[in-house]
Amino acid sequence: MKAKLLLGPSFPEEELKKLTRYAEIFRLSEMGEEELDAVLPSVDCLLVHFWPERLDRTRVSKMKGLTLIQTGLAGVNHIPLGDIPKDAVVCSNAGGYSDEVGEHAWGLLLSAGKRIVRLDGAMRRRGFEPAPALELGRDILVLKGKTLGILGYGGIGRKVAELGKAFGMSVMAFSRSRTGGPGIVCLQGRSGLERVLRKSDALILALPLTKSTRGMIGASELSMMKQDAILVNVARAEIVDEGAIYRHLADNRRFIYATDVWWTKDGKESFSPDLPFLKLENFIGTPHASGPSAAVRSGPQRRAVANVLRFFRGEEPLNVVDRSEYV
Amino acid sequence: MKAKLLLGPSFPEEELKKLTRYAEIFRLSEMGEEELDAVLPSVDCLLVHFWPERLDRTRVSKMKGLTLIQTGLAGVNHIPLGDIPKDAVVCSNAGGYSDEVGEHAWGLLLSAGKRIVRLDGAMRRRGFEPAPALELGRDILVLKGKTLGILGYGGIGRKVAELGKAFGMSVMAFSRSRTGGPGIVCLQGRSGLERVLRKSDALILALPLTKSTRGMIGASELSMMKQDAILVNVARAEIVDEGAIYRHLADNRRFIYATDVWWTKDGKESFSPDLPFLKLENFIGTPHASGPSAAVRSGPQRRAVANVLRFFRGEEPLNVVDRSEYV
Repeated sequence: MKAKLLLGPSFPEEELKKLTRYAEIFRLSEMGEEELDAVLPSVDCLLVHFWPERLDRTRVSKMKGLTLIQTGLAGVNHIPLGDIPKDAVVCSNAGGYSDEVGEHAWGLLLSAGKRIVRLDGAMRRRGFEPAPALELGRDILVLKGKTLGILGYGGIGRKVAELGKAFGMSVMAFSRSRTGGPGIVCLQGRSGLERVLRKSDALILALPLTKSTRGMIGASELSMMKQDAILVNVARAEIVDEGAIYRHLADNRRFIYATDVWWTKDGKESFSPDLPFLKLENFIGTPHASGPSAAVRSGPQRRAVANVLRFFRGEEPLNVVDRSEYV
Repeated sequence: MKAKLLLGPSFPEEELKKLTRYAEIFRLSEMGEEELDAVLPSVDCLLVHFWPERLDRTRVSKMKGLTLIQTGLAGVNHIPLGDIPKDAVVCSNAGGYSDEVGEHAWGLLLSAGKRIVRLDGAMRRRGFEPAPALELGRDILVLKGKTLGILGYGGIGRKVAELGKAFGMSVMAFSRSRTGGPGIVCLQGRSGLERVLRKSDALILALPLTKSTRGMIGASELSMMKQDAILVNVARAEIVDEGAIYRHLADNRRFIYATDVWWTKDGKESFSPDLPFLKLENFIGTPHASGPSAAVRSGPQRRAVANVLRFFRGEEPLNVVDRSEYV
């Protein structure tokens, strides 16, 4: 008997066809409320990007037959893991966005370090006179010979690290478990984290949002960093404490925070932060554009479908999440 | 007998000391008009950054004993080569800024390709609502697998090329004489230039400004480029025709020009262009900040002094300019 797969939008049809040998596909977008309620108890597999709003707690409680949840996103922090049957396998799509998000991290880092956003903005305002050449030069971060720190050494972390090496930087990663590679030092534990914080001229966050990474960068951690460091976030906003980073930026005008990710309000990533970050000169923001630059070419979606196929064929799926890290 | 060296500002004292064994140093900044006029006929060597305003045509005509002109800048287009004794050796400081200017080129390229300047600006304006994720993603250039073109394959060109390889790009350089390296194709001649123009998703200008590169990128060359290409200039503004690039940007809103260098007005690089580039969304400008980020650490200055020392010791100096390329 075929499995029942409940499907969210934006997965490519030609890939989904490969699943039809193993599963009957129910498309959320095409189902009425009653039809949805009727099928929920017999759904085996859920394949979605964002968690669908229609799958509220009441409905989740009906999905007692779930054996697999696969998300098209790199992180699983949007999935209500506490409400889902304990023996269901939950798979992230970690690694599906590494190239594009890694490139975006470098875009934010160089836009900040080379003062491009600020200088372009100053030139657009009337009456701009640049500082004398050497003063202007002093304000710019030269990467060669400096230290790049990376928190998290998964797909994005490794991509970012290789680019750091190409720029002639010393690369230090903080990772719970991984070891480094040629020219890349990996450090563990609280002391390892603190060493990376203190040494980094630029620090890129590339960790999943879990119980232990939420608020990981607070006032104390920021105070350990160099006063003119650049902090780049392409992971999840909540890894950084909103109030702490705002105060740190206001008090340390040479420190720069450049982010593609934003704090969640009412269950959604909000591009209107609670504090006026967008009035600060030492802040750079893009509206979570890195992931979509990958998704638009369907690479991550195909990868997610392939992982479901792996599961149906009885193979070990990739990126199985340890739920104890989240709930 | 010691040579007489006329010195401009901003060379480090500890390096200049090494010259005193061979030369008597006359500091322009400390000399009155009469004193300067008196010494000019016996000056053997001139070491400056920008060409000093005080050395006008009348004074240049008095410097009949010049055997060496060394500039601290990478280019020599600021030197009045037509007025200088024919047998004087003129040395550029090519290669002295390669790391910093190469990094800046990548900063401009990523700021443009990842739409960071534009998205940050949009977020700062009130009422910003980002486009739906996939539309936002479609607007962003993913570098991996794309083609990077480079015009000029000297120090900056090679630095930029290696970074292109690290980003997983195909790299094609246009060079008069050089051959490529592993993973880097070098093309020559007009047909080679046109091939690079047509193939490039991003094109970085890293050529000196000479008779043959002035206006090299005009309307015809721009029309050969991809409609959504990114053109980055870290060389000299005059390589690109000001009117042609302005019209091209106005007519092709997906094409981006990102520049650190500006067209010369009244003998000086001017940050107020004749046309309203700074009102265009598909333009990014920084006020010639790349070179100063190198000069502030005195690397190029030390390198220039070392080349003068080489000359005094009877060794072959580096970067001897072929004047026929300029006048």
